Amino acid sequence: MASNTALPLVLLAEQFAKLPGIGFKTAQRLAYHVMTMTDEEAQAFADAVINAHSNVRYCSECQNFTENTLCPICDDDMRDHSTICVVETPRDITAFERTNEYNGVYHVLHGLLSPMNGITPDMIRIKELITRVGKEDISEVIMATNPTVEGEATAMYISKLIKPMGVRVTRLALGLPVGGNLEYADEVTLFRSLENRSEI
Amino acid sequence: MASNTALPLVLLAEQFAKLPGIGFKTAQRLAYHVMTMTDEEAQAFADAVINAHSNVRYCSECQNFTENTLCPICDDDMRDHSTICVVETPRDITAFERTNEYNGVYHVLHGLLSPMNGITPDMIRIKELITRVGKEDISEVIMATNPTVEGEATAMYISKLIKPMGVRVTRLALGLPVGGNLEYADEVTLFRSLENRSEI
Repeated sequence: MASNTALPLVLLAEQFAKLPGIGFKTAQRLAYHVMTMTDEEAQAFADAVINAHSNVRYCSECQNFTENTLCPICDDDMRDHSTICVVETPRDITAFERTNEYNGVYHVLHGLLSPMNGITPDMIRIKELITRVGKEDISEVIMATNPTVEGEATAMYISKLIKPMGVRVTRLALGLPVGGNLEYADEVTLFRSLENRSEI
Repeated sequence: MASNTALPLVLLAEQFAKLPGIGFKTAQRLAYHVMTMTDEEAQAFADAVINAHSNVRYCSECQNFTENTLCPICDDDMRDHSTICVVETPRDITAFERTNEYNGVYHVLHGLLSPMNGITPDMIRIKELITRVGKEDISEVIMATNPTVEGEATAMYISKLIKPMGVRVTRLALGLPVGGNLEYADEVTLFRSLENRSEI
């Protein structure tokens, strides 16, 4: 924002620009929007930031965000606690829960291994997963990281740690997306889809 | 956000979703990002919202946002205070200042007339402009609202109020954008460009 604008507005725009996916122009627009809020709205917005940041912690079991010691999923006795679905972010849990098909529990890594970006195993929640698998009666660990280089590497790394513990480790299937089009599928996806074909 | 997420996070995502151009998924992503901030960062973000909202007011002359009674442009004796450039938003001032060519002052309407959306003349800062033109020694008012239906209507409305006061009212030129392509210009722009042609 140029020097013809009030300093607090420039500072607010800089704060917005720090958020992921928010560029300089958008940050400026958001800062100007705050000026059109009522006092109550601006206060509610600031309070929501502080409240979320200070009252939300990690679930002691699965590392998902929660207000209590245990998240609602880990605290649910109706769920199958012997199956752990390992995901990168809490958003992935929301995606799985939307399917209404998975009844096991989760484990959030809060990141993926990436030597290129300096993310080493001790920087994501792998240790907590290994402790869980060793302590509880786990029958299956589903590696549900994204099918990317980092996601695959993280899944391989973790599976090599867990398999010696006598626990079954599985990986999400790769193939054509439902409603997809063969013509537009990339070669790797099509190859995986052919390789993992099933009887009908 | 689904019920498997902590309530304060849901509330924060709802606050982000109220901002212009922020959809539900982006709001959720921003809320999760706040969780990765340090305590100081979260506090600085909340403080910036409150600080901008409570310490920034309207310039008593041009209605731009400022921390003081007068904005830096209205307070600058080196600028030509007899020429007023009338814009819709403070962002438009930033755009003009980037040209480094305009040395007059501004007037921010904070909106455009739009009977369709119920925006009437008393809801934008037209009264303040008329008072300024009547009180000061103004030689020219440049209507620099966007070349849209609302922008044109607002420019026409204001010019009809100011012209009888014996002040010259001008409008930004319409034509081809610099670096543009005749082939891709719309008919209206091309017609205006032809109509407003100049001697070389």
